Amino acid sequence: MSLLTGPKGFQFAGVRCGLKNKRNDLGLLVSDVPARAAGVFTQNVVRAACVDHSRAVLSTGTLRALVVNSGNANCCTGEQGARDTARMAQLAVAALNLEDQPVAVASTGVIGQLLDMAKVERGVFSAASQLGADVRPFMDAILTTDLVEKHASATIGGAQILGVAKGSGMIAPNMATMLAFVVTDAAIGDYDLQGMWKRVMDRSFNRVTVDSDTSTNDMALLLANGLSGETPSEAEFERALLEVADSLSRQIARDGEGATKLLEIQVTGSANPRRIAESIANSPLVKTAMFGCDPNWGRILMAAGKAEIPFEMDGIVLTLKSNGEDHVLFEAGSPAPFDPKKVSSGLKSDHVIVDLYLGPGESETVYTCDFGYGYVRINAEYHT
Amino acid sequence: MSLLTGPKGFQFAGVRCGLKNKRNDLGLLVSDVPARAAGVFTQNVVRAACVDHSRAVLSTGTLRALVVNSGNANCCTGEQGARDTARMAQLAVAALNLEDQPVAVASTGVIGQLLDMAKVERGVFSAASQLGADVRPFMDAILTTDLVEKHASATIGGAQILGVAKGSGMIAPNMATMLAFVVTDAAIGDYDLQGMWKRVMDRSFNRVTVDSDTSTNDMALLLANGLSGETPSEAEFERALLEVADSLSRQIARDGEGATKLLEIQVTGSANPRRIAESIANSPLVKTAMFGCDPNWGRILMAAGKAEIPFEMDGIVLTLKSNGEDHVLFEAGSPAPFDPKKVSSGLKSDHVIVDLYLGPGESETVYTCDFGYGYVRINAEYHT
Repeated sequence: MSLLTGPKGFQFAGVRCGLKNKRNDLGLLVSDVPARAAGVFTQNVVRAACVDHSRAVLSTGTLRALVVNSGNANCCTGEQGARDTARMAQLAVAALNLEDQPVAVASTGVIGQLLDMAKVERGVFSAASQLGADVRPFMDAILTTDLVEKHASATIGGAQILGVAKGSGMIAPNMATMLAFVVTDAAIGDYDLQGMWKRVMDRSFNRVTVDSDTSTNDMALLLANGLSGETPSEAEFERALLEVADSLSRQIARDGEGATKLLEIQVTGSANPRRIAESIANSPLVKTAMFGCDPNWGRILMAAGKAEIPFEMDGIVLTLKSNGEDHVLFEAGSPAPFDPKKVSSGLKSDHVIVDLYLGPGESETVYTCDFGYGYVRINAEYHT
Repeated sequence: MSLLTGPKGFQFAGVRCGLKNKRNDLGLLVSDVPARAAGVFTQNVVRAACVDHSRAVLSTGTLRALVVNSGNANCCTGEQGARDTARMAQLAVAALNLEDQPVAVASTGVIGQLLDMAKVERGVFSAASQLGADVRPFMDAILTTDLVEKHASATIGGAQILGVAKGSGMIAPNMATMLAFVVTDAAIGDYDLQGMWKRVMDRSFNRVTVDSDTSTNDMALLLANGLSGETPSEAEFERALLEVADSLSRQIARDGEGATKLLEIQVTGSANPRRIAESIANSPLVKTAMFGCDPNWGRILMAAGKAEIPFEMDGIVLTLKSNGEDHVLFEAGSPAPFDPKKVSSGLKSDHVIVDLYLGPGESETVYTCDFGYGYVRINAEYHT
């Protein structure tokens, strides 16, 4: 596997400390100098201690490092859980000689079990001794049911933006989607980084839904250390950030638990096209039809209608797009004639666009995936 | 199979006219005299012509008969669909010699195909010639993916209330749940029947969710013909109606597509316990865990928290109840010790109560079912 390197002045490490089987489960991400930072977090009322910790740390607008574990979400673990999160940060500070510099903590995995802190301690010191330019060991350390690694990058002149993410189940658009970390060596101006990060989230991760279930541990962090010396304009930087976040969002939807394809739900018109797109994207009946490659357009209209945003039937055009072909299924208030076998064959593609035109107006897109036996298998046989 | 008879002065028929294979697909329900009537209908923006027709007919507060077909929802079928719905009512009027009396129409089945009106015409006349006291042929004629018949009854003195319902997929609480028809020979006072019916719906069918998908054809009708001469008080009548509707609601949830068990989600406390109960009931992760008999309480708390209704972790008590045993899984902000094997074994029951106490306050209950391979099989392999 080729080397994946990050922007200037960032180092990465990932090790297996035994919190889960087989894969890496503890990661470190360190900037050589304090980095300007922004973050968004789950809106779930039930949330892990690491969410509270990292939000508090971020209030300084600066991060030096991040320590993350997978295999255990350290959520619903009471006061001991909060102490363990604080200890994770302290261990990273000690292992990296960071003294009092701000360290974020993220955790992902099963809810409701205490962390094995002896394993975490060994993992943090082992990772600290293996820091390097290769991002892959770190990226592996944040995965859980993900089947594939998720990373994206962009360049602005001499500056690089690199993002990694994890997420496959318990994914719904509400702030961030499980874990996403984006680092850059761009030397950004004194614009509102947190505001920009929120705008980018709203146009990317918040548009993803795998199963409508919002995680307790969602976290998306941005670190900019300025070491490239490149000074992009605010608009330039935001555009590049969005490119990276959008790519990660599609990767997450395509790797949804049990998924066989990425579904892009595009809705145009009505007072709230986004809510209608989300309603379609979260409909089990639409998602199972897509799994079965069934052009069951009635379910798509049903799911659009249940969002309770008014629209007229007369103006509707529903088109399924895949493999470069467009199939119109419903037009001007009535079913359009189509060849079910041909459309069904097109739905075997791993990327299908559902284009619902309700009338003139704004367009909004939501990313999701189909819903098949694999989702049930993964989630009914997951071990508590 | 034993004879199932309805209240005095109601006759039923069900025949197979060929709209679908194997089962009855056309039903008639007739009152010997005009009956006072109430009805609630889907709130889906996309709705079938029969919904508009029956709502308009009901504005008189009176119904004489109902004609219903399964196998075809006659929805998204444009102006021809509306003409076919009107024609169904006219055929029933002709076959039953009802002249200008009000006849409701209901349809359920696949969306987006025109009705074969020649079959419907033969079916209506054939059914009209077979009217009788036995409810079963009618009840069979309204089923689609249902595995079991759903009926419930109550008596008030010499009066009877009988309800039948269908529904298995595309079921979410919003007015009515696919089709439910309740008839009674009680001689009711001049109280607001429509208001009472809405209150009863809110305490029964609107609490059911199988898959969060709201049908385009939902309809629940009540007919009271007064022929028993029994005159229950308003409170007495509402209580008995609720008993029937509650029983039908549980039957629908237990027979959800692919379901192996009825889940009763009880939430106490917070500003909106119902919304939290619905959030749990619609969580794919909770439903697949229940299918897998996995006491994965973290997912239940996650789903409670994602509803964004604030609550304190400290006061929470989460209890799973089945087979007469109570298992406390979370208490006072921390996981409670429990024997996973014993709890998992209890979850094999076909009726599980999830009791989430968030603090003092109102209790609300929502009915749902688990989510397994069967749901995917039924809905990925359903034919368009």
